[in-house]
Amino acid sequence: MEDPRWLSPQEQRAWRAHLAAHRLLSHQLDRELQEFGLSLSDYEILVNLSESPDHRMRMSELADATIQSRSRLSHQISRMEAAGLVIREHCEDDRRGTFAVLTGYGWDTIRRVAPDHVASVRGHFIDLLTPAQVATVEEIYTQVVDHLQEIRSAR
Amino acid sequence: MEDPRWLSPQEQRAWRAHLAAHRLLSHQLDRELQEFGLSLSDYEILVNLSESPDHRMRMSELADATIQSRSRLSHQISRMEAAGLVIREHCEDDRRGTFAVLTGYGWDTIRRVAPDHVASVRGHFIDLLTPAQVATVEEIYTQVVDHLQEIRSAR
Repeated sequence: MEDPRWLSPQEQRAWRAHLAAHRLLSHQLDRELQEFGLSLSDYEILVNLSESPDHRMRMSELADATIQSRSRLSHQISRMEAAGLVIREHCEDDRRGTFAVLTGYGWDTIRRVAPDHVASVRGHFIDLLTPAQVATVEEIYTQVVDHLQEIRSAR
Repeated sequence: MEDPRWLSPQEQRAWRAHLAAHRLLSHQLDRELQEFGLSLSDYEILVNLSESPDHRMRMSELADATIQSRSRLSHQISRMEAAGLVIREHCEDDRRGTFAVLTGYGWDTIRRVAPDHVASVRGHFIDLLTPAQVATVEEIYTQVVDHLQEIRSAR
């Protein structure tokens, strides 16, 4: 077996900064959303539904869009259903199934929370970067997403 | 109240790519570490301990280093203790506390797993980037980490 190709000091710093930044950022955004009774994952689900036709998505599509397992999403949707943000609808004509649908209260919530959330994303991430750095983030992470989605769809 | 400064299309693409890439990457690395019975968080704790003098850290330092709450870390260390990877040591002379200490088995485990893990980090992230992009990742995310650590320490 070949010697492992260990990370260079700079690669290691880049990798660790990526991990730490993501963790700190998730904590901070979660913390700021908690004032509205939401988590970052709740917010992402509300965004996805609010951008979909008729404010509804198949559970399987929503799981793909938010990159989580069906079972984990199902627990989360149950909590959000209890909070009145979404409802589940079962479609009898369609064997593929169950839909998650944004409620009126869910729609009011995302509209009320979005201005603060976008200010958080700007303050803790986007506005710290130059426009050139924003372009590089898009370029790099789109490439990483494409690579990993390919592995995922090959499974 | 001023109009919110919504994200531009490019800022939005950059932000969403960052979130999606991190989620996909964590899933993939977790999945590959599962073959060794570890999660990505377990791996990070093993790395931190293996790089510390005498392979031991105060629980409070370890919580800071891995950016998580004391209570969450405590649950994780209990699971890792049950797996034989670490032990807890209480220091009577030191009121600040409890230490987590790498066991011999924990040390063997990190040495056995590291070559595969570094290959995963390269294959799914570092080797997809040019050296200039690696430098930009370090630059951008170090800045984000510094900003968020400052907020954290001001609390």
